[in-house]
Amino acid sequence: MTLIEPKILKGFRDFLPAVETGRKHVQAVLEKTFESFGFAPIDTPVLEYTEVLLGKGGGETDKQLYRFRDNGDRDVAMRFDLTVPFARFMAAHFHDLYLPFKRYHIAKVFRGENSQRGRYREFTQCDFDSVGADCAGADFEILLLMRQSFMNLGIQNVKIHLSHRGVFNRAIEALGVESSAVDILRAVDKIKKTGEKEVLASLEELCGNKAAAGILDFIRPEATNRETLDKMTRLAGGEGEDTRRVASMLDWMRTMDIGDSFFLDPSITRGLDYYTGIVYETFLSDLPGIGSVCSGGRYNDLASLYTREKLPGVGSSIGLDRLLAALEELGQKERAESRTQVLIFCTNENDFARYHQAARVLREAGLNVEVYPEARKQAHQFAFAEKKGIPLGLFIKPEAGENCVSLRDLHSRENVDGLDPLKAAAEIKLRLTQRGL
Amino acid sequence: MTLIEPKILKGFRDFLPAVETGRKHVQAVLEKTFESFGFAPIDTPVLEYTEVLLGKGGGETDKQLYRFRDNGDRDVAMRFDLTVPFARFMAAHFHDLYLPFKRYHIAKVFRGENSQRGRYREFTQCDFDSVGADCAGADFEILLLMRQSFMNLGIQNVKIHLSHRGVFNRAIEALGVESSAVDILRAVDKIKKTGEKEVLASLEELCGNKAAAGILDFIRPEATNRETLDKMTRLAGGEGEDTRRVASMLDWMRTMDIGDSFFLDPSITRGLDYYTGIVYETFLSDLPGIGSVCSGGRYNDLASLYTREKLPGVGSSIGLDRLLAALEELGQKERAESRTQVLIFCTNENDFARYHQAARVLREAGLNVEVYPEARKQAHQFAFAEKKGIPLGLFIKPEAGENCVSLRDLHSRENVDGLDPLKAAAEIKLRLTQRGL
Repeated sequence: MTLIEPKILKGFRDFLPAVETGRKHVQAVLEKTFESFGFAPIDTPVLEYTEVLLGKGGGETDKQLYRFRDNGDRDVAMRFDLTVPFARFMAAHFHDLYLPFKRYHIAKVFRGENSQRGRYREFTQCDFDSVGADCAGADFEILLLMRQSFMNLGIQNVKIHLSHRGVFNRAIEALGVESSAVDILRAVDKIKKTGEKEVLASLEELCGNKAAAGILDFIRPEATNRETLDKMTRLAGGEGEDTRRVASMLDWMRTMDIGDSFFLDPSITRGLDYYTGIVYETFLSDLPGIGSVCSGGRYNDLASLYTREKLPGVGSSIGLDRLLAALEELGQKERAESRTQVLIFCTNENDFARYHQAARVLREAGLNVEVYPEARKQAHQFAFAEKKGIPLGLFIKPEAGENCVSLRDLHSRENVDGLDPLKAAAEIKLRLTQRGL
Repeated sequence: MTLIEPKILKGFRDFLPAVETGRKHVQAVLEKTFESFGFAPIDTPVLEYTEVLLGKGGGETDKQLYRFRDNGDRDVAMRFDLTVPFARFMAAHFHDLYLPFKRYHIAKVFRGENSQRGRYREFTQCDFDSVGADCAGADFEILLLMRQSFMNLGIQNVKIHLSHRGVFNRAIEALGVESSAVDILRAVDKIKKTGEKEVLASLEELCGNKAAAGILDFIRPEATNRETLDKMTRLAGGEGEDTRRVASMLDWMRTMDIGDSFFLDPSITRGLDYYTGIVYETFLSDLPGIGSVCSGGRYNDLASLYTREKLPGVGSSIGLDRLLAALEELGQKERAESRTQVLIFCTNENDFARYHQAARVLREAGLNVEVYPEARKQAHQFAFAEKKGIPLGLFIKPEAGENCVSLRDLHSRENVDGLDPLKAAAEIKLRLTQRGL
């Protein structure tokens, strides 16, 4: 028989246990953090009507879409992000929900783009939004949650760069170049990639030397967040609801003694029309090259394509693949072949029930335990434990009576004999704690 | 502007927090159970080459497939189960893996079938397999893991019906009707749905009255598992590796005192050609009508479409949607709008940082806490807490000094005043424990 080649599509991946275990760990930490802030999980279909996903359509998204006709001849497509399905979700369900509605959604999205340079066609996004409250308190909460998420992942050196689109727009108006606002935003958005000089050149082309110099002045941070805010306020033509909101947040950060994690950076614009209030990107001080790992902002109308109900909100998105790459570079990613802590060796198949009785005691003590399923050579079972990265082994000889369990440290090769399963569990926990496992 | 209707495709679903929280809880319990047995997670692409998914093709699967040409004109399709991708995965990676390789995979699958009668086109499967060991120990472990999964979900009254395809095949040979084996298996497979009488009629048509009576004798369980095995052995023409394997498992079950969860039921065949050893289905004694919630069996060649390497294994699959429906009927499903335990009321926006400082203390104590984001009317905030099902509230008045926290039980409307955040955390935990939350 001719074999079929077990190949996968370009831009798609298999996740083997070592990697998938790490992914699940990161996802679990994030979910726990989100829930500790009252954010609840939702899910939406992978496949939707193309019309719903594309909205007015046009642009880059179209070309990237996995789009086809289903068996009922409907024009359907796979979701390319979690924002559009969330807007559709809110339009369909806001009557049944309490507001502010805080949700998170961690799921795969699909983009049939050129998958060169490490870009994937199937990747995982993690979005969290608070919809229905337009106030500094909701903005602040998202920023706190972002910070806490990284802390809980063990990343202390995180810097959230934030600005406010409303203030930016007023500054552009004050310079009399509001007709080019969108292009100016996009030009400034490139500053982290291309540097100040290139941005200045683009701005000069867009709105003349004088306005370009004014914009460059605006987007340069000062020595402290407070001074930066003062300059932003001045160049925007004075105080407003927008600058007051930023001022409140800076105050609260000071009171909570977390100001070090936040950097008021007026060059942050987020290119999208969508945002209307605060905008932010997150950088890891130990890995500046990796770019922003978490970004978003406030929008004043989430679901205007689908409903006339105004749904203002603030949200953020983590690219899980990029974050995992970052954790790996920082040496913080769990890289275990498995989470098994103990292997019970099989030396006599007649004792199999005894092995599983001991395994049950250890599992009830919270341990992850495997029983080797057949009486193969011990060398083989040791090799298996080593390949799977299992730190401890148990030998059980029921004929030796009650205390018939021997614990073997598979690294040091040390033995502890004469245990019963309960004592073995205690000894195992002690050793795992000592080794920080 | 014309609005787009926020509709979703037939057979697809949005999951709101109350439902998604329950799903995530069940999934987390299963994952923890799998890992306690040394099963590790993997993931594979949603989209694959059609050729890889369909194999030799033909049959029902073809028509159900979401299949299309991607932007690179490749013939691709969305996965319709997790078994085929796992076979492809093992063929591609077995060189890099330790055997026996034990994996679990919980993920969405897609079938464009008629979605009447509660059948979905997108649904979640949960598969777990042990590949590389062909022995009673590996078979027994899967059965134990199935039983433990239901126990950990709080379902005690579970009955795993098992049989052995090898013994069945020998019994059919002894009756001289092995040429109709596949049709006989499929006819018997319907017994739980149609009853004995209908099955007998089909069998008589397939292989005559005498053989049909013999098969009916074979598939009728006796008073005890041991007696059933004795009859199966006799009708199959005597002992063999297959009956010895079943005997070992029955012995081990007796030693472990878990025999009550298992029922040797020779009418279990699992219609598929694929299985070669033990086969099983799982029924909930409190919900007989719902059918099998977990089934599978042993196969001797997982990946023969993609590799000449023989990969024997044993595996099981849980339909998560059916299981969740069962848990709901049993009244065991978490049905909380959210997992938030405490709402910190916002009475003065100037105190916002203080609210979040208290929230931080509570979160560090392991609690899920929300801060209401703006100083809206208290009635409004109370209504929010009620809608979201939050049991406890905190009022914080920093001007009252150190012990400025009041706890309010949102059910009994009882108050406890004069707390600091740490004392509040202890009081909250006490009350949650008392209420079993």
